[in-house]
Amino acid sequence: MKIVALAGGVGGAKLAQGLAQILPSEDLTVIVNTGDDFEHVPLYISPDLDTVCYTLAGLANPETGWGRVNETWNAIANIERLGGQTWFRVGDQDLATHIERTRRMKAGQSLSQITRDFCKAWGIHQVVIPMSDNPVRTIVETDQGELAFQEYFVHRRCEPRVKGFRFDGIESAKPEPGILNAIKEADAIVICPSNPWVSIDPILKVLSAPLVSSRHSPQIQRILGEKDGGEAKKVVAVSPIIGGQAVKGPAAKMYRELGIAPSAFAVAKHYQNLITGFVFDEVDAKFEPDIQGLNMRTLITKTLMENSDNRRRLAEDVLHFIGNQL
Amino acid sequence: MKIVALAGGVGGAKLAQGLAQILPSEDLTVIVNTGDDFEHVPLYISPDLDTVCYTLAGLANPETGWGRVNETWNAIANIERLGGQTWFRVGDQDLATHIERTRRMKAGQSLSQITRDFCKAWGIHQVVIPMSDNPVRTIVETDQGELAFQEYFVHRRCEPRVKGFRFDGIESAKPEPGILNAIKEADAIVICPSNPWVSIDPILKVLSAPLVSSRHSPQIQRILGEKDGGEAKKVVAVSPIIGGQAVKGPAAKMYRELGIAPSAFAVAKHYQNLITGFVFDEVDAKFEPDIQGLNMRTLITKTLMENSDNRRRLAEDVLHFIGNQL
Repeated sequence: MKIVALAGGVGGAKLAQGLAQILPSEDLTVIVNTGDDFEHVPLYISPDLDTVCYTLAGLANPETGWGRVNETWNAIANIERLGGQTWFRVGDQDLATHIERTRRMKAGQSLSQITRDFCKAWGIHQVVIPMSDNPVRTIVETDQGELAFQEYFVHRRCEPRVKGFRFDGIESAKPEPGILNAIKEADAIVICPSNPWVSIDPILKVLSAPLVSSRHSPQIQRILGEKDGGEAKKVVAVSPIIGGQAVKGPAAKMYRELGIAPSAFAVAKHYQNLITGFVFDEVDAKFEPDIQGLNMRTLITKTLMENSDNRRRLAEDVLHFIGNQL
Repeated sequence: MKIVALAGGVGGAKLAQGLAQILPSEDLTVIVNTGDDFEHVPLYISPDLDTVCYTLAGLANPETGWGRVNETWNAIANIERLGGQTWFRVGDQDLATHIERTRRMKAGQSLSQITRDFCKAWGIHQVVIPMSDNPVRTIVETDQGELAFQEYFVHRRCEPRVKGFRFDGIESAKPEPGILNAIKEADAIVICPSNPWVSIDPILKVLSAPLVSSRHSPQIQRILGEKDGGEAKKVVAVSPIIGGQAVKGPAAKMYRELGIAPSAFAVAKHYQNLITGFVFDEVDAKFEPDIQGLNMRTLITKTLMENSDNRRRLAEDVLHFIGNQL
């Protein structure tokens, strides 16, 4: 079964790693959000790509889910001594990724080419593709003004009250051709338990770009809403909200501030016109009738992914759930 | 006694540190070559400034004379894994300097302002000034073509045969105003035992720029050749060539390839129209009559600076030598 997974950072990376434990490597393609990317001058940083790659390579810090394991912090300690910016914590090993990626980008290489090369260097056999080689920048509209995503997320610790989102550059961002091929060949799409607003929506918006929604790529159109017809691809989302809370990050807070009670049901509704199946946690079993009422199949299981075994088990559940729909 | 020292990398840094051990900090200004600076994309690197500052701050690696003491190499090991450029060895602590300097330059700060701030952060009380805030790039003309200095020096290990030098940007490079003030107030100028061709000449060329050689700055003109007149400043050079060899670096090789036998005499001749006194090693005592014949006073002493005590002692000798000329 060929799977394309859409992923943001930590939650997405964990399920991707679970899927990677089961699927032959050539059968998993992970498409990663780049709306969080930013110029941390002089470095270009791609946080979700790094989290996904480090996790798949077994290089991620198991405590945080992001950054590198066995990391040292000598560069940033010295940047601090020089009065530099330290709100974005970059370890010494992690720094190498940013330096080399930035060097290559300045030499004209595309983010997807660089990602392919890095995956090879890190021993990652699955295909990891940034959602676009064109810059997309997530802007969080808050009660304290418009904030670039990392400014909101890391520097301001998600404290400003969210009013909406904007994805600068999204209109002209094209999905990398590899994405279209992977989706064409996939049996199903898995939307990982990442933040629907700021991790998954940018990917979906790139995939729904005018250029893509042509007659030449009907698969994409089906992903983006056309569930009718026997050939439609299965699209399954896993809820990042468990018991009304996000496992990590501001998803639940964002729902509340946008006037929506955060719940598995709210997530299912978010993806209503797109998905054929929804996976959510046992603690949210009470939402099952409501979610089924959204015209999708449901799977209730344990969705917390505290360790590698949990990830594998959830991935197995998701794949069986998809298999039953095929 | 107020001293302005002109310095390149390791040799210059060592004598500057010797002088710093003796002089009140407000009486020492070190003007540093920036012709070796380069864009090691995405980082701006200023090797001589770093060596001088690390040495004055007690942060330099005592084994190499450049780079940081107690350094770690986690970033570059990972850059290597990613297939990146590793010919310029940058440690994790050192990296912080390059990242923060580059960030500030991109934000519009001048190299001299950044150097002032870094010196403060590193607890350096002497004044360290880059020779110019305008970019100057030393190009080594060789039998294998024109090479940017670091390409010649580090990447190609000084192996290509030197035919000459060019200093791109030197015509429009202005000395920072602080340099002119420091020279105006100085009792003497010390040319440190750095490479005459590629470390000291660029500084001298910046100081002799048309803008500077106006009637408003007669002191500079005297430094640059006008030794007549009782008010002329004393200018003393210390030979970087000992027994026909450079202590470090390609100075002797350069002399040979340019058709000049490398010797203390050759160095004295290089600075002939500029200096009032010349300091060289006991092993080269045989050159004393020839050097005195160049119309300059001489001091023969031990000039190797293997440790902090050697540096202090040589600095004392140089200062006494100057004192005797005043």
